[in-house]
Amino acid sequence: MGNTYGKLFKITTFGESHGRAIGVIIDGCPAGLKIDEDFLQNELSRRKPGQSKITTQRKEGDKVEIQSGVFEGQTSGTPISMVIYNQDQKSKDYSHIADKFRPSHADFTYSEKYGVRDYRGGGRSSARETAARVAAGAIAKQMLSQLNVNITAYVSKVGNISAPDYQNLDLDGVEDNIVRCPHPETAEEMIKRIDQVRKNRDTIGGVVTCVIKNTPVGLGEPVFDKLHAELGKAMLSINAVKGFEYGSGFEGVKMRGSEHNDEFYEEDGVVKTKTNHSGGIQGGISNGADIYFNVAFKPVATIMQDQDSINERGDAVTVTGKGRHDPCVVPRAVHIVEAMAALDLADFYLINLTTKLPG
Amino acid sequence: MGNTYGKLFKITTFGESHGRAIGVIIDGCPAGLKIDEDFLQNELSRRKPGQSKITTQRKEGDKVEIQSGVFEGQTSGTPISMVIYNQDQKSKDYSHIADKFRPSHADFTYSEKYGVRDYRGGGRSSARETAARVAAGAIAKQMLSQLNVNITAYVSKVGNISAPDYQNLDLDGVEDNIVRCPHPETAEEMIKRIDQVRKNRDTIGGVVTCVIKNTPVGLGEPVFDKLHAELGKAMLSINAVKGFEYGSGFEGVKMRGSEHNDEFYEEDGVVKTKTNHSGGIQGGISNGADIYFNVAFKPVATIMQDQDSINERGDAVTVTGKGRHDPCVVPRAVHIVEAMAALDLADFYLINLTTKLPG
Amino acid sequence: MGNTYGKLFKITTFGESHGRAIGVIIDGCPAGLKIDEDFLQNELSRRKPGQSKITTQRKEGDKVEIQSGVFEGQTSGTPISMVIYNQDQKSKDYSHIADKFRPSHADFTYSEKYGVRDYRGGGRSSARETAARVAAGAIAKQMLSQLNVNITAYVSKVGNISAPDYQNLDLDGVEDNIVRCPHPETAEEMIKRIDQVRKNRDTIGGVVTCVIKNTPVGLGEPVFDKLHAELGKAMLSINAVKGFEYGSGFEGVKMRGSEHNDEFYEEDGVVKTKTNHSGGIQGGISNGADIYFNVAFKPVATIMQDQDSINERGDAVTVTGKGRHDPCVVPRAVHIVEAMAALDLADFYLINLTTKLPG
Amino acid sequence: MGNTYGKLFKITTFGESHGRAIGVIIDGCPAGLKIDEDFLQNELSRRKPGQSKITTQRKEGDKVEIQSGVFEGQTSGTPISMVIYNQDQKSKDYSHIADKFRPSHADFTYSEKYGVRDYRGGGRSSARETAARVAAGAIAKQMLSQLNVNITAYVSKVGNISAPDYQNLDLDGVEDNIVRCPHPETAEEMIKRIDQVRKNRDTIGGVVTCVIKNTPVGLGEPVFDKLHAELGKAMLSINAVKGFEYGSGFEGVKMRGSEHNDEFYEEDGVVKTKTNHSGGIQGGISNGADIYFNVAFKPVATIMQDQDSINERGDAVTVTGKGRHDPCVVPRAVHIVEAMAALDLADFYLINLTTKLPG
Repeated sequence: MGNTYGKLFKITTFGESHGRAIGVIIDGCPAGLKIDEDFLQNELSRRKPGQSKITTQRKEGDKVEIQSGVFEGQTSGTPISMVIYNQDQKSKDYSHIADKFRPSHADFTYSEKYGVRDYRGGGRSSARETAARVAAGAIAKQMLSQLNVNITAYVSKVGNISAPDYQNLDLDGVEDNIVRCPHPETAEEMIKRIDQVRKNRDTIGGVVTCVIKNTPVGLGEPVFDKLHAELGKAMLSINAVKGFEYGSGFEGVKMRGSEHNDEFYEEDGVVKTKTNHSGGIQGGISNGADIYFNVAFKPVATIMQDQDSINERGDAVTVTGKGRHDPCVVPRAVHIVEAMAALDLADFYLINLTTKLPG
Repeated sequence: MGNTYGKLFKITTFGESHGRAIGVIIDGCPAGLKIDEDFLQNELSRRKPGQSKITTQRKEGDKVEIQSGVFEGQTSGTPISMVIYNQDQKSKDYSHIADKFRPSHADFTYSEKYGVRDYRGGGRSSARETAARVAAGAIAKQMLSQLNVNITAYVSKVGNISAPDYQNLDLDGVEDNIVRCPHPETAEEMIKRIDQVRKNRDTIGGVVTCVIKNTPVGLGEPVFDKLHAELGKAMLSINAVKGFEYGSGFEGVKMRGSEHNDEFYEEDGVVKTKTNHSGGIQGGISNGADIYFNVAFKPVATIMQDQDSINERGDAVTVTGKGRHDPCVVPRAVHIVEAMAALDLADFYLINLTTKLPG
Repeated sequence: MGNTYGKLFKITTFGESHGRAIGVIIDGCPAGLKIDEDFLQNELSRRKPGQSKITTQRKEGDKVEIQSGVFEGQTSGTPISMVIYNQDQKSKDYSHIADKFRPSHADFTYSEKYGVRDYRGGGRSSARETAARVAAGAIAKQMLSQLNVNITAYVSKVGNISAPDYQNLDLDGVEDNIVRCPHPETAEEMIKRIDQVRKNRDTIGGVVTCVIKNTPVGLGEPVFDKLHAELGKAMLSINAVKGFEYGSGFEGVKMRGSEHNDEFYEEDGVVKTKTNHSGGIQGGISNGADIYFNVAFKPVATIMQDQDSINERGDAVTVTGKGRHDPCVVPRAVHIVEAMAALDLADFYLINLTTKLPG
Repeated sequence: MGNTYGKLFKITTFGESHGRAIGVIIDGCPAGLKIDEDFLQNELSRRKPGQSKITTQRKEGDKVEIQSGVFEGQTSGTPISMVIYNQDQKSKDYSHIADKFRPSHADFTYSEKYGVRDYRGGGRSSARETAARVAAGAIAKQMLSQLNVNITAYVSKVGNISAPDYQNLDLDGVEDNIVRCPHPETAEEMIKRIDQVRKNRDTIGGVVTCVIKNTPVGLGEPVFDKLHAELGKAMLSINAVKGFEYGSGFEGVKMRGSEHNDEFYEEDGVVKTKTNHSGGIQGGISNGADIYFNVAFKPVATIMQDQDSINERGDAVTVTGKGRHDPCVVPRAVHIVEAMAALDLADFYLINLTTKLPG
């Protein structure tokens, strides 16, 4: 029941980690959009595991195939179906935990809710599901690039190692290092920390920051579907996310109104604000300034250590860490954050076309 | 377009701050629920302004009237319409800002998006809209109380003054002081701080923490409608909210997986976890442990000071603080947070009735 | 759960026949639309009972009040709430059937479904609910009139008395007689028949035909939300409706493809069809030709005769006809049909704005 | 935007006639349902072309593959994705009409609406899309069979040849002849008529009647989502459908209320009606009696004759009939009607689980 996202640019995803395939249908993508399949495949490749020493060594093909909705290189206004067949499934890696509840995974809650559970690789609760989001996001990005909207996410924190504010970073440098932090010194520290944690057979959390430039004024639908409320939901729906803040965020609570308020001025006919504690969103609607927000990811729950737990019958058991897993999820999460942001903006852009009658 | 919230327990709100009325229709409340109208009115009274020296002295009647859907004291399964007529509208207080954009308000974005704007008291963007949410939440709470679910929100932070963790508080004491922090010493400090800020004609932010006890296992709909994703959206849709985190939240990013993981055990046939960094939610589904989360509110944008801005024609103007406003929004926000949480849980409870065929 | 209609131009209605009020919220009406409140009130007056000898003599005030969403005479993009307070409620007329199931009414099914039932005047199942639809439809019509779309419904059949095809009628003459059939001779016959049926303390069915001119090409959303599928749902949701057909309809099944197909030609740069068996809709999308359809209404279930039935305990009882009711519903149903058609077209028009990127 | 159907038992379909694949995702099917894949495949085989002399000789593989949502033979509560790869695509058959608008097809309206059009075999507007509905319906049927609900559709009319009322038929005999009319004499006539029409290189329309037995009391959601309103939409969304009527339908308009009303009585503790002009639905809610309705299908638009038309540039052209097509669609439409009815009932069943709190 919760596998559809968006109102007009609407996606529905399916698939389990070790099932036959995962995929997505986009319903509502405007017709006549040119689709670059290389860009699409490339977005997926950025997300996929096995890219460096600080990510899981698991290999996933992540070859995406468009099954409908694109005709002679452009969208036809009909549903766009994309599928990614599962490969390299070492389902046997999971037989030892078939009836055990791994700590801080979804095993227990899925078992209780559904009564039946595909235990192989986490089934539907696996982060592999996010590949379908990245595929859909790649289509949304192609629509947004026509509108000149630019979305960049990067790793701003690993454990307690933080990068400077985004205003002081060169956001073009995200892909220059394996941790995807566009501040070389901080990146190096982060990589060291992750590597050390990995050697300790442990995991660690982090923060992804996302910056959106050139958003048209007017996106977002008060009162419940405020732009930041929907962005918040989108981000919180990503596996392992524990928090979301935009603009001044949690730090803003310490400020006075007189410091926090963003005063308006006009420059070259464009309305601007002197500061941007609002994070580009006022009253739930984009104001044209940079949108920026932080997304907190917990440490990956799968660790290479023994842990106490119970099985489906309630017996005490030991869960032993096995398989190939990420010591830190954030370097591979940046593209998922971007994809979800793109889906939100594409949706709100289309909705906003109906706010006033044309002409 | 964004004025409906919920899938099965679904609310639609309407109304401007200085229009004729605000209100809400609930569609999907189960039939046969006994409605206590005193409780309903009392919830609204808790939210209303003019209660103490640290809130606005503006008086709002907030008398709620049920117009349909309740027959002989119980819900009939048809839409429940509730209306609150506006009173004490000093619309003239706003004529001086009719064409000005107040800093960090929704004036500019509403003007741009809709082309027309009810400037009186913020119109639809006013926090008065939340009274309708509280009314709807009061019905959801009555449904949840049948299920023994208990929701308590309180002020955990004002500026940089923080209360201890919720486990160390007596949550029954929320209404014992005017700042609604159930830790008397902290409350006193907070009140002093707000009072001082008010005297400086300024405002300050804060955090509301919400704790939900006795949630049935199984609520939440992966993958997009995870319980915490929907709670996040609900909270972020409240005026002035800048951030949301649940369980370990932003602090959790600093932890190792080995510390953060919540190990399972069984006690008296009930599955429990030794720690609760998960915040009662795993894989987007409630696991029966306490759900807890924090909601960050920025300092109120209306300050009693002159500020630079522009008007609709782009001319530089001065916005002068006038009227009756809150120096800090959190003491009156606790009931809105509770209401939105109740709406989410009621909705997810109903959805979950359809996860498995009965019998 | 079923009280909302539409995707972008979305209405939610509430209210019971003998409750405090009925009403509607429109969410998604574009901003900047000029609202003529006289037109709105007039639409409601056309629907209201007590207009002539062939309708119920019951008086309903049907004074509509806009509570939000209209500012200085135009829509502001926020929800438009409209309320009609109930008056002239002779609730005591219904006490004799409080626990009885009237034949072919919704009494039994509401009782079984909800466990509780507002028996006064049919409660939520009363056709009084349609006043809220007419109010919402009046706003949709004002939007459509800007687009030059013209919707006319009329009575085409009462019992077995039929008017000629719409092409042979002057559709401006609908309001010229009390049965609302724009063919004077047929109208006279219909009035006689209804009057006779009324004197027999009985009721009779009829058909309303609706013709929509100047629909833009492109409205309708295949595959499930085809224009005629949604029109069908809209019409079938009106009380007492038993059937819907568009274009050639049920008669079309007898034709050969070679007769039925509408051949294309171009005239003055406009694509037209030689015939219009398609009823202006091909593949679920408007083609610019006249849209026309028929809606079948059963005889009103309330008759002034004694009928056998049972009560809530299953005892055999007699239901005695009482009160003030219509002998034939179609003369008052034409405006409801128009309203629902207007809501559909307004919705599809907005949706279609998002089919292609602008510019 | 219109490719999703249902609220809780929700399907989204994709695919073009000559694209890579067609398919469907079901989101909201309850967990723990045993799935019989042979039954699923068999339902598809019943719909597929090439079965007899009165249907198209085109061969379609229609081999369905489940990609997710079923684990060890039962539904897991996650989305069920099913795909049918396209085969036997003679796309070249269509190159001669690539830029022509076939009369009474969706060519012109798709071109105008989307600006781009997959002309091969009708693309998305092809009836091949209904195979995905049949697949989804087969899952819904398996859920309904647990509830003892029984759905049977059959051909009741071809041209002007009509079968007797359903009460006088043995509904088990639908598959006994190639026209799928369970009245042998009428079936023979129908087959002759279709064969004759086919030889004339023409096509003919027909009616499918559907009978649903053992529906639980209480399904349907007033006021907009009345059971028959949703059934009507479902049927009208099927290719070539021009009309829908239930219970007494269009004939009912000729009756008096005193004849038409269904008087209640009780038998063995079950509430029944003496007659069933209501068609098993009162006030939009099932009353436990047989639900029955008729669906009118126009003659197939593709005929083996030359027709006048225009091309995309507005030039007069001749459209020449080619390829392999059905002379009459109804024999293959019965399973689509059943599938859509099953989807509606499954959805309303789930929604109705939330009408009252359990226990």
